[in-house]
Amino acid sequence: MSTFVLVIDLVGTFVFAVNGALTATRAVHLDIVGVLVLGVITAVGGGITRDVLIGAVPPIAFTRWYYLAAAGLGALLAFFISLPPRRLTGAIIVLDAVGLSLFCVTGAQKAVEHGLDPAAAIIVGAIAAVGGGTIRDITIGKVPSILTSGLYAIPALLGAAIEVLSAPLRSYGIPVALVGAVVCFVVRMAGVCFKLEAPKAFDPNGQPGGQPRG
Amino acid sequence: MSTFVLVIDLVGTFVFAVNGALTATRAVHLDIVGVLVLGVITAVGGGITRDVLIGAVPPIAFTRWYYLAAAGLGALLAFFISLPPRRLTGAIIVLDAVGLSLFCVTGAQKAVEHGLDPAAAIIVGAIAAVGGGTIRDITIGKVPSILTSGLYAIPALLGAAIEVLSAPLRSYGIPVALVGAVVCFVVRMAGVCFKLEAPKAFDPNGQPGGQPRG
Amino acid sequence: MSTFVLVIDLVGTFVFAVNGALTATRAVHLDIVGVLVLGVITAVGGGITRDVLIGAVPPIAFTRWYYLAAAGLGALLAFFISLPPRRLTGAIIVLDAVGLSLFCVTGAQKAVEHGLDPAAAIIVGAIAAVGGGTIRDITIGKVPSILTSGLYAIPALLGAAIEVLSAPLRSYGIPVALVGAVVCFVVRMAGVCFKLEAPKAFDPNGQPGGQPRG
Repeated sequence: MSTFVLVIDLVGTFVFAVNGALTATRAVHLDIVGVLVLGVITAVGGGITRDVLIGAVPPIAFTRWYYLAAAGLGALLAFFISLPPRRLTGAIIVLDAVGLSLFCVTGAQKAVEHGLDPAAAIIVGAIAAVGGGTIRDITIGKVPSILTSGLYAIPALLGAAIEVLSAPLRSYGIPVALVGAVVCFVVRMAGVCFKLEAPKAFDPNGQPGGQPRG
Repeated sequence: MSTFVLVIDLVGTFVFAVNGALTATRAVHLDIVGVLVLGVITAVGGGITRDVLIGAVPPIAFTRWYYLAAAGLGALLAFFISLPPRRLTGAIIVLDAVGLSLFCVTGAQKAVEHGLDPAAAIIVGAIAAVGGGTIRDITIGKVPSILTSGLYAIPALLGAAIEVLSAPLRSYGIPVALVGAVVCFVVRMAGVCFKLEAPKAFDPNGQPGGQPRG
Repeated sequence: MSTFVLVIDLVGTFVFAVNGALTATRAVHLDIVGVLVLGVITAVGGGITRDVLIGAVPPIAFTRWYYLAAAGLGALLAFFISLPPRRLTGAIIVLDAVGLSLFCVTGAQKAVEHGLDPAAAIIVGAIAAVGGGTIRDITIGKVPSILTSGLYAIPALLGAAIEVLSAPLRSYGIPVALVGAVVCFVVRMAGVCFKLEAPKAFDPNGQPGGQPRG
């Protein structure tokens, strides 16, 4: 990976760790080891899934010490943060969106470097982005955001697609990666802020389907 | 993969996507994106697990566009289907059995082609078959069928074994694959229809164990 | 793997299968197939995860028949054991600690043999150790021990570290593997017996955090 991609991969790892650790203190109220573990799992889960899917094993999170250092640091920091509930919820959502935006770009980029086709690289990028949060939710017994939030998988696919498809136009570099990440972040946050909801299926159980679950 | 194996792999992908999407509308009442995502996960989850286990990465679901197309089409179709509750439950069970039957055969066949021993190929085939549904259930917080249903893993192992063990008798081809799939389907549906239950362990908590959990 | 490492890997597989099967009869009261499946998943889940992460696919659990035989035997044995609730809980905890101790050592050792750096090998060893129990818990819908128990991941990392770091001192062999496993077991059981709890974060929801969740 280029230095720039590495740097935003590490920033993504850090913010996902903060997010996972805050989720742990909020949702399941774990002790410090549990908070650290959930933070680290959230931070490196997406990248490990990406590396396994493209055959880059052992995953870079195990072979470069700074990944686990960034994850541990983020989780520790979050453990000592005290936020009132409302601001905590906001922080969890924003950090998740930042991690999503950074990982879809770095994941797609790494997949391209490993020789994947554009379409496959876009999917792998999106999986790297949504993977950490999905593993976090499943581990604590929550239905994951990719299912309940209409605009979670879509911005990740969008950011990864911008990163992959802009390749023929110019050599990969800072600007492209940033465009993909920014678009992903804006779309994700727009979905959160305006409570954008996709249409629901007719409910055969007769329950009114109008109440958003998100 | 031979053309015939590819075709039944795609049919399996399609029916599992319909199944996963119907499960989503029934169990968690998701919006259209959630229904699509759960349908696609159910459809390609088993095959991705199979490909990771045999080292065929990136998984074929990412490198051949028609897999995701078949999965997306199936999930979309299911989103617009309106069925009364009883028929919906029936459709979910039958489609799951069809997907199970097709994937145990194609999974075992692909494992053999990648040089696995017969025993390992049978296991991989069964995992490919039960994988999608298991990931689906875990994702929505349900105890998966492989644990609660006595005849779920067994027909998958049976279908995969027929596919693998019939190899020395004749060259792989249409008839063998169909025999394995049909046996798997018949055994699975027999278990569902006649509510076949395997014996339960003595319950140390003193609860009567006689009620089937389904 | 050396013969000795193979033997303790198989013993670990057997005790994890007993543990998983007992958990199944206690937590979800499954029928015999469900008990077998959960026992086998608990037994081979950590090793399969380890093999996928180091690129040793297909996993050894599929290619050497004695792994599934040891797992099936352990699960079957557990199915026919009748224990009163208190002793059952104790057996589940002790067997889990034994499996944890054996798998952190064999996992780290196998990772070293596959050329991983010491740090990566320690992590892979710990993942091999906690993997089976974590998959078991997630499958039955329980928050896994790595999150709720302060001393679960730590003894696994400790045992793996002793195994990996003692390599330069002497050639790998019986004594080193045993030291790592014994230290892991003692630390894990000390945590259980003395209810050692790591500090908890300030709870922004205002709930008193003093009650151990165990």
